Amino acid sequence: MPTFQTVRGMRDLIDEEAQTFTYIIGKARETAMLYGYREVITPVVEPLELLSAKSGEEIRQRMFIFKDLGERQVALRPEFTSSIARLATTVLKNGPKPLRLFSVGSVYRYDEPQHGRYREFWQSNFEVIGSAKPEADTEVVLLTNSLMESLGLQGYAFRIGHIGVIRGILSQDNVDEKTQNAVLQRMDKKEYDAALKLVESEKCRGMLEGLLEIKGKDWWETVEQIKGYVESYEKASIAAKNLEEVLKLVAESARLSVTVEPAFARGLEYYTGMIFEVYIPELEIALGGGGRYDRLIEVFGGDETPAVGVAHGVDRVALALQTQKTTLAVRTQKRVVVLPITEELKSEALKIAQLLRYNGVTVEFEIMGRKMGKALEDADRRKVDFAVIVGKRELKDDAVMLKDLVNRQQNVVPIKNLPEKIRG
Amino acid sequence: MPTFQTVRGMRDLIDEEAQTFTYIIGKARETAMLYGYREVITPVVEPLELLSAKSGEEIRQRMFIFKDLGERQVALRPEFTSSIARLATTVLKNGPKPLRLFSVGSVYRYDEPQHGRYREFWQSNFEVIGSAKPEADTEVVLLTNSLMESLGLQGYAFRIGHIGVIRGILSQDNVDEKTQNAVLQRMDKKEYDAALKLVESEKCRGMLEGLLEIKGKDWWETVEQIKGYVESYEKASIAAKNLEEVLKLVAESARLSVTVEPAFARGLEYYTGMIFEVYIPELEIALGGGGRYDRLIEVFGGDETPAVGVAHGVDRVALALQTQKTTLAVRTQKRVVVLPITEELKSEALKIAQLLRYNGVTVEFEIMGRKMGKALEDADRRKVDFAVIVGKRELKDDAVMLKDLVNRQQNVVPIKNLPEKIRG
Repeated sequence: MPTFQTVRGMRDLIDEEAQTFTYIIGKARETAMLYGYREVITPVVEPLELLSAKSGEEIRQRMFIFKDLGERQVALRPEFTSSIARLATTVLKNGPKPLRLFSVGSVYRYDEPQHGRYREFWQSNFEVIGSAKPEADTEVVLLTNSLMESLGLQGYAFRIGHIGVIRGILSQDNVDEKTQNAVLQRMDKKEYDAALKLVESEKCRGMLEGLLEIKGKDWWETVEQIKGYVESYEKASIAAKNLEEVLKLVAESARLSVTVEPAFARGLEYYTGMIFEVYIPELEIALGGGGRYDRLIEVFGGDETPAVGVAHGVDRVALALQTQKTTLAVRTQKRVVVLPITEELKSEALKIAQLLRYNGVTVEFEIMGRKMGKALEDADRRKVDFAVIVGKRELKDDAVMLKDLVNRQQNVVPIKNLPEKIRG
Repeated sequence: MPTFQTVRGMRDLIDEEAQTFTYIIGKARETAMLYGYREVITPVVEPLELLSAKSGEEIRQRMFIFKDLGERQVALRPEFTSSIARLATTVLKNGPKPLRLFSVGSVYRYDEPQHGRYREFWQSNFEVIGSAKPEADTEVVLLTNSLMESLGLQGYAFRIGHIGVIRGILSQDNVDEKTQNAVLQRMDKKEYDAALKLVESEKCRGMLEGLLEIKGKDWWETVEQIKGYVESYEKASIAAKNLEEVLKLVAESARLSVTVEPAFARGLEYYTGMIFEVYIPELEIALGGGGRYDRLIEVFGGDETPAVGVAHGVDRVALALQTQKTTLAVRTQKRVVVLPITEELKSEALKIAQLLRYNGVTVEFEIMGRKMGKALEDADRRKVDFAVIVGKRELKDDAVMLKDLVNRQQNVVPIKNLPEKIRG
């Protein structure tokens, strides 16, 4: 007998859970449409070479890697960005910029499973390729806001930082890129002491330490303080001003809750500029996050191409909706069973079922061959709204018995009026 | 530089191709709703043990199998049925029958790539669990018909057969199940000589040969002939009558084109009864297929449970729509760009973009920082419908310049009237 379990860290979604996923994906697709993003569908299985080109060391170690039957090294995608970079550097290379691309699907990471974290999880992913302007950074924040808002989430807030400020400080003191990546990785895990230990120069270490401590009373003040603090660091200073510009555009065009965190870093090595995450107060894990990665497209053999993107965790958003007990704005369908009184009337009953479906009514046809009483009992137990009872007598007048199982009424109804009667 | 290619047999879908996929999946979901199927989402990665429990030997050899980092033998699902069987024998075990379950997603088979056949492909999958009645068989045929019809496919036709007739003949002559499976596999590949060679008894071979040659002028006559031919074979006879019942219900409740093929077999070993496929005249590959598998649930440790299901190939349906040049019934959105005349007006322009999106209008905001002329030129080239030009003068009166890029007109329009003006 085979095992009944899913692979560790993966899960089956049924009923409300599956419905919520489909709902979130629908809202993400709607957001993509409103912001002019083209949907693309890329494979789950990708060449290892592609996926490891610029993923962080961390992710590389947590990928599902294997050889296919042709001895090719392949892996399950841990995120969408590498696949999108392929598109941007091949088939879409010569198209007009910016490219705005949307994807949604499952991704895979071999993490320790925990609350809200799975080894197979779903993302909706948005990438803007070709713009270095702060408007592009703003756009991915705004569309994330639109998505959260359209889902009905309450009290969500954005954490925003800028990798360029940290890298600017480190590179002015000639800290090599590999060490920079290691520092950022530690910071992402909030291991600030370990991060600082990696920096040899005492001056630089002190500078970084000071940055981490900056905290204004609001995002505005925090940015002002960062700007002042890195004034003599050229690249960091440019980065701080860029952060300010992005934040101004965000704040002036939408109402959203933002905190600026100078010590904020994200796991993926490829970020170069503004980074952000969105949270609800009830959950410690981010519902989504992204940022600017101006050097990634080069790595994939493209020309130097600025880019910014965001991914939203569908599983986490689902958890957030559940935590906040959000009512999904789904069309509730009336549930109808169609029951032939005798075996001989099955075809006639099926025809009526098809007519109802053709008119948009959800019909469960009686396929168990049960006696009327049993079938009605079952429909009652499952809180079905209507039973359409197909009998010889009513059929003579092109009619059926419509039994309202909620209001406990029944009436003979002409078949042609059925869809209307059921929709009410 | 990493490879730019997808893994052999897999592909990227962009623009119309991606849109068509999303469209087909939407129609499949709508069909599921109309027929009362609950959507479930199961993992792409499954325990090898689960997937190989009752897949045919063929499929087993063509799976993407690997070990995860915890040394578990896992594989990418080659189809949905095993995962659904897990649900039916665990979490949904005690729910009311029938279970009607719908899934859609990617599946994986290591086949030689060819026209319309990929190593990663998409299926919409419907399973009815718990009914042995012909109404259940009819339902999966009817819902396939509804799906094909709602997609606008033309001239599609069903091939229908019954594994029980073939197995009935073989088992009456004590051909063991393994040989039966091998015979059916050869027949599935139309290797009829090879199939017959596997049957030792001359009488049985002759009987089977005769069955393969039955061909009436329509499905009705073919079934009559089969019934007569297997009259003295008890199980085959029951199977032939069951096939007749299913076909009668189908024919009486919907208009569809059917041929009955006595030699029809399908690759998966678990079929026990009616089997079918649907084709369009222009393509040699089936767009979908399924059948009855009454013993599968047992294999997964459940009680004896009759079941019937169907899977539709999204990639193939997409190819069919493309081949027939079908126009998809998608809502076409007006495309709008929002352009601030000067840098200072970016926030104001963004606010207007947000207002439009809030009203359901697709807006591409100018994030390249281009001068007006260049941005308009680009919008023209990309066949955008409207440009909303945000300038200081008009803003004073809470208005903008709306440029109709199709009709080459421009007007000053109050911001509050913009959504209405654009939707026309």
